[in-house]
Formats: sequence, C-alpha cells, structure tokens
Amino acid sequence: MSTPMRLAIAGLGTVGAGVVRMLAENGDLIAARAGRPVEIVAVSARSRGRDRGVDISGFAWEDDPVAMARREDVDVLIEVMGGEDGPARAATLAALASGKHVVTANKALMARHGQDMAERAESAGVALRHEAAVAGGIPVVKALAEGLAGNRIDRVLGVMNGTCNYILTVMEETGAAYADVLADAQKLGYAEADPVFDVGGMDAAQKLALLAAAAFGTKVDIDGVVVEGIERVSLTDITHAADMGYRIKLLGVARMNEGGLETRMQPCLVPAESALGQLEGVTNMVAVEGDFVGRVVMQGPGAGAGPTASAIMADVVDIARGLAMPAFGRPAESLVAAPVSAEGSEAAYYLRFGLADSPGVLAKVAAALGRSGISINRMRQYEHSETEAPVLIVTHRTGRAALDAALTEIAGLDACRAEPVAIRIEDA
Amino acid sequence: MSTPMRLAIAGLGTVGAGVVRMLAENGDLIAARAGRPVEIVAVSARSRGRDRGVDISGFAWEDDPVAMARREDVDVLIEVMGGEDGPARAATLAALASGKHVVTANKALMARHGQDMAERAESAGVALRHEAAVAGGIPVVKALAEGLAGNRIDRVLGVMNGTCNYILTVMEETGAAYADVLADAQKLGYAEADPVFDVGGMDAAQKLALLAAAAFGTKVDIDGVVVEGIERVSLTDITHAADMGYRIKLLGVARMNEGGLETRMQPCLVPAESALGQLEGVTNMVAVEGDFVGRVVMQGPGAGAGPTASAIMADVVDIARGLAMPAFGRPAESLVAAPVSAEGSEAAYYLRFGLADSPGVLAKVAAALGRSGISINRMRQYEHSETEAPVLIVTHRTGRAALDAALTEIAGLDACRAEPVAIRIEDA
Repeated sequence: MSTPMRLAIAGLGTVGAGVVRMLAENGDLIAARAGRPVEIVAVSARSRGRDRGVDISGFAWEDDPVAMARREDVDVLIEVMGGEDGPARAATLAALASGKHVVTANKALMARHGQDMAERAESAGVALRHEAAVAGGIPVVKALAEGLAGNRIDRVLGVMNGTCNYILTVMEETGAAYADVLADAQKLGYAEADPVFDVGGMDAAQKLALLAAAAFGTKVDIDGVVVEGIERVSLTDITHAADMGYRIKLLGVARMNEGGLETRMQPCLVPAESALGQLEGVTNMVAVEGDFVGRVVMQGPGAGAGPTASAIMADVVDIARGLAMPAFGRPAESLVAAPVSAEGSEAAYYLRFGLADSPGVLAKVAAALGRSGISINRMRQYEHSETEAPVLIVTHRTGRAALDAALTEIAGLDACRAEPVAIRIEDA
Repeated sequence: MSTPMRLAIAGLGTVGAGVVRMLAENGDLIAARAGRPVEIVAVSARSRGRDRGVDISGFAWEDDPVAMARREDVDVLIEVMGGEDGPARAATLAALASGKHVVTANKALMARHGQDMAERAESAGVALRHEAAVAGGIPVVKALAEGLAGNRIDRVLGVMNGTCNYILTVMEETGAAYADVLADAQKLGYAEADPVFDVGGMDAAQKLALLAAAAFGTKVDIDGVVVEGIERVSLTDITHAADMGYRIKLLGVARMNEGGLETRMQPCLVPAESALGQLEGVTNMVAVEGDFVGRVVMQGPGAGAGPTASAIMADVVDIARGLAMPAFGRPAESLVAAPVSAEGSEAAYYLRFGLADSPGVLAKVAAALGRSGISINRMRQYEHSETEAPVLIVTHRTGRAALDAALTEIAGLDACRAEPVAIRIEDA
C-alpha cells in the first residue's frame, strides 16, 4: 500500500495551483486517507516562469500537456486547463490511451465529450472522474452516483452558477439594474471580463447535463438542455416576484418525463421561503429528490481554487484507494441516449403584461388564457403609468405549448403595450 | 459481473421492511448501478407472522440472526435490529467472523463498539459500513470520508435529531411548553413512547461521535461526548433568544483543539438567519468545514423507513461494486485515541439571570463577570415581575471554566433569585 500515486497537473491557473498547495499542506493527511502517498511528479502550463504563489521547482516541467500525459512516471492526469476541445481534450485522450487515470474539472469537455471519454476510460481500465466540474466543492456527483444509488431519482434541481446568483441577489437587495450589478461584479472578480458563459447560462447548463447523466443513467446531452441566461431578468420582475412571495433564480432542473429527459437551465421563480429561494450570493445549492430518500439538499462554494481542489482531491483519493466508480455512476456502455422531452413538464407560470388602461382589457387576457385551458391562480393589477397598467398573473399548472398559444394571442391585442413576460415557477 | 450479491436482513421493523420494499421496487436500477444483481436471500426478526406490508415469502426465514449471519449463501448482513449489545452485536460479530460484509443502521452499536468492529472487519477483509446510522438519508459519512477527503476538517456541526428539532420548532411557533409539545409529538409519532434517548441527546450524540471519527481520524469515543438534552430548554429562553436574533437548537459540534477532541451535543444558540437557524421540523442538517473547501451544508430527512433504506442501499451498492472504503475513512488501526479536550473551545454565551429589582445588582453581576475576564457584548433588562427582573447578557468569547466561576459567584448573590441560565452560542 505504500507505492505512491503520481500525479501530473495540466494547467496551473488558480485551480491547478490550489491542487499543488493542497498537497503541500495536507499531503500527510491525504496519504493517510488514500492509504498511500499522493505526489505530484510533473506539471504543464502555458507560461513556465509566472509566479503562482506555489513552489513547482520539485516537479518536472512539460511544455506539452500531451507529452506529459504519456509520461511513464505518471498514474493520474489532473486536467484543469479548460476548454471543450484543444489541448485539454488532446491531453485527456493521450492519458486514457496511455492507461492513465484522469481527473478533470473541465465541464465543457465532459459535457461535450463525456460519453466518448467514459467509454475510452472503461476500455482502458482506468478511471475518469469529474466531481470538480459540477458545483465546485460540493460532493454532489458522488452523492448522486453513490450516496443515493438505491433511489429512482425524480428530479435534480439547483443553483449552479455563483456569478448569476450573486447578480440576482444584489439586484434584489439594492434595486440596481442588471448591467450595473454585472459591472460591479466584474470589478470584484465575481464575474469574468467576458461574462457570457456565466450569465448566458451555459456554464450552469453543462453542470446540469453532467448531473442528469448520473441521475438518470443517460448519455450526457448538452445539446438537449434548454438554456436561457439572466441577461433579460428585469428589476421589475424581481420586485413583483418578491411581492408575490417568490425569488428569481437561474435554476437548473432535470427530470425524466414519459416523453424523455427534460433538462432546463433558465430563470425561474421559486418560493422565497424555500431553501433555494433563500440562497444568497455566490453559493451553489443542489437538491436531489429520490423515491425513497425524499429530498436531500447540498449547499457550498461553487467555485474557487480551494473548493475545486477539494473536489479534485476527493477523486484522486478514490482512485488511490482503488474505489473509483465509473464517471456517470454506471458503465458507460449501459448509459442510454434518452430523447429530449419535447413538451417538458407542466408548471405554473408568472406572467406580466403591460395593458392599456381601458375597459374590458383584463377580460380579454383572461379569455385568451381560458381558451388555452390555462386557469388563473392569482392576479394583481398595479396602478397604471401614463401608457399602461402592469398586470401580474400566476397561473395554475399548464404546458408550455398552451401557454405560448395564449401569449401569442394576448400579444396581438391592441391593448397589449409590451411584450408579455412569462417565467416558469418551479416547486422547490 | 453477473454474480448476484446476496443479502440477509436482521430485523424487519420499518427500516428492514423499507429495504425489502426498495429492492422489490428498484431492483433493476440497483443492479445497473451495482454492476450485478442484489438480492435478499434470508431474513430474521422476532416475530415471523407479523404483517409488515412487504412480501417476505421468497426469503429463507431464520429465527436466530446469528445463525443467519453465518449462512453460506449470504454475502452481506444488513443489521437493522438496533441495540448496543445483544443480538445486534452477536449477529454482526458472527457475520464478520464468517467473512461477510456488514451494513448497519445501528448507531448505538457503532458508537460503542465501532473501533472493535472496524478492526475485525479489516482483519477479515470485509466491509463494515454505517451510513444509515448517521443523519438518515443524508450521505454525510460518504461526504466526510470520501467527498471531502483532501481537507483538514475544522469543524463538523449539525442538527441530528429530528424529534428534538421538531419539539423546539413547535415550542417557538406556538408558545407551548416542552411537556405539552412532547406529548403531541408522541401522539403524532414524531417521538417515541419512551423519548429519553432522543430528547436526552444520546441518539444525536452517537451520530456525532461517528462523524467525529471520520472527520478527525480518531477512534470513536461516545464517552467523550458532552451530552445535554432539550428537557430543560424553556419557552422563556426560546423567546428571549429569538428577541436577540438567535434560535435554540440541539446542536452537535465536533472540532479538534490543541488539547484534544471536543464533541458536544447540547442546546445552543445559533444565528436565526443561518442555515442551521432556519432549519425547521424533523429535518436534519450537517455542516462540514474544511480548510480548502470552506463550508458544505447537507440537509435531508434524518429518519424514517425510506431515507434509512436509501442509506443502507448506498453502502450495499458500494460493496457490490467492490468500492467500499473503511468504516471511518481510513484503516481502523490508523485511527488514534485522541484525548478529550477538557476545557473545550471558547464561545460566546447567552446568560439569563433573575435579579432582585434593587439598586446596584446589575453592577455586581457585571463585576463578577469582569473578575472572570468575561466581557459583555450585549445586555437587556426586561420589566420586572413581582419578585425579579429578567436580565439577558450575551458575552464575548470566553472559556467555560471562567464562565462557571462567574456563574457560581453570581448565584451566590442575595439578589440572585433563580439559578442562572447559560447557553452556548455557536457560530453557524
């Protein structure tokens, strides 16, 4: 049991440096838990000389991560370069082909090529693990694939992008507009200079696609995820939603319907008093609902060097122990290609209309909803401005097709002064 | 991979019946995740004829769980009888001695004999697992021992007894007294006819002792846990705590101090707006703080047939996959016997005094605290009754010995009309 497990780290950004620091500080502890020493033998990054705040002088340097992945003295490749193709994929493929285990934090790579990678890993008899790709330090892949393995999973839902949750939280707290809060978040380092990957929902969608595969035994399908970002979430809707007892979150939801797999990452209303509704700031939260366990909720830091290194090291320790389960919780060849649930599940919706303040308008809106079979749970009309009166409606559960038909009809009314807003309400 | 894994279930109460039902309903799914069929071959309970709502006619019946544990056709003993000694221990020892894996939901057994059991399991080369013994369906043992394995754990804290949390929640919501709420909880089935194991704190203390072993690599030490129940929590203190922004929870806290391991299960004040403060009803919540990950919080059902069966099956699936780590996350022989931290960590305290309404009394109390080096963070005096004025003090952090010295001095004052109340405030 004392043969060391030897790591190569591809990528020395904050996460890669975090892994170096973790082994420097907790190496003894990790060895005790892994049953053998875990040591870094080689590293690779774009720039050799850059100061990363960690000592890498004891490790072999490789300019080429692919060459590093093939080194004879490496047992596990830690891939923390990022990117769905390019060097990250090339190095991962090289490692698997050379019989090395791979631990990756790369959600883009796994969401796009996870099935192929998992099949290659299993053919080669090595492990491929990606706990760090989903919800940072929260051990949620493990919880789904192992800790809740006896359950038929009914639904996975959660807030999986800290940047978006931070922006929405601050908008609600301060009443500032989206663009202003985003600019502040960029200054504070909570949002990237190019934020589209976060605020557009794709970062979180990739995580959701990975969780869905583990939850439902399906091939990871990033193209099947309905993705909508927070760019169009308005302060008006945040405020009105709060008035009605809800908060708006960029919420990921995965469930298996009769017609196929439904995965959506989009702004939703959740009850303000629910655990997800109360979640503030950059923290992530994932809830898993199983037929026997009921609901388990996990909350923690969704990003950052320390939490991501923590998730990487959990996978490394499992591999060192010889206890690594398959990437998606069962053999890759047994994962099924589920159809995408076209209609999706029914839901209640929050609707906002700007209507002319003239007699009979509300009746026309209600009639249009009724013609689509949509019944109204709650309605509020606010004091009208010069041109229109804001009307809020919370519907009972309805399908999206029926809703879209009604919204089209209402948008065509002369009295409808603005594009109707419809936001899904998710039970949480 | 198609050799079935064969289970024997010792105990057919609600949990044992839940395991039977889970395999009947989700057997295919479990086989897919486990990589092989999982089937029950034998069962044992006190009464054969009782209707349990599940069909056990396909399983061999054994009157004696010890004989069942030794059956040649059994790979894993599921021990759900309960009890720290007696048949549960005898059957477990027989199983381990016969080279069978053991999965147990028995916190009393594991808290008392866990070290011995783990050593026997490792000598025999079999697994001993107890996820179901801690926090019901929440996969928290797995999170600690595997999912956060790269971290030095700073603190584990949580609410681990649903009965107590239900009682405290209802007391706060309704203003009813402890005894009345307990009686109602017994009628509703949320509390046992003999509730002392729950309300006295021992049930939760056993769970905490098990978590501490996994968190800190120590031998499980139930006798080292400071245990105090909720029987003496008064409505007065719940109300005053709420006024000051806190809620009272039966809180388990484990941390490693310089002087040794500190484990305490006792009523504490936690900030009302914290996740633990907001926890209501029978739900359990465990927070784990690690040096790299920060804080991860897990929440879910802490008891019941379904959640407990879920935890048991997770362990079963790990064993079927050949992926079962040691009971406490590292080899039993490497676990250390940590001394009990005598003084414990410093904390702020909530103090309540009933003082005579006469000049200079408050000064004497403040002086006594000052002489023990305790400084006051906040103080409130309420309108006096006929005999006394309630005075609340929130202290700055202090050691318990200093506090006890001050409380003894204050209790000895002529003007002190009631036994002083002191409740620890835990950062949460």
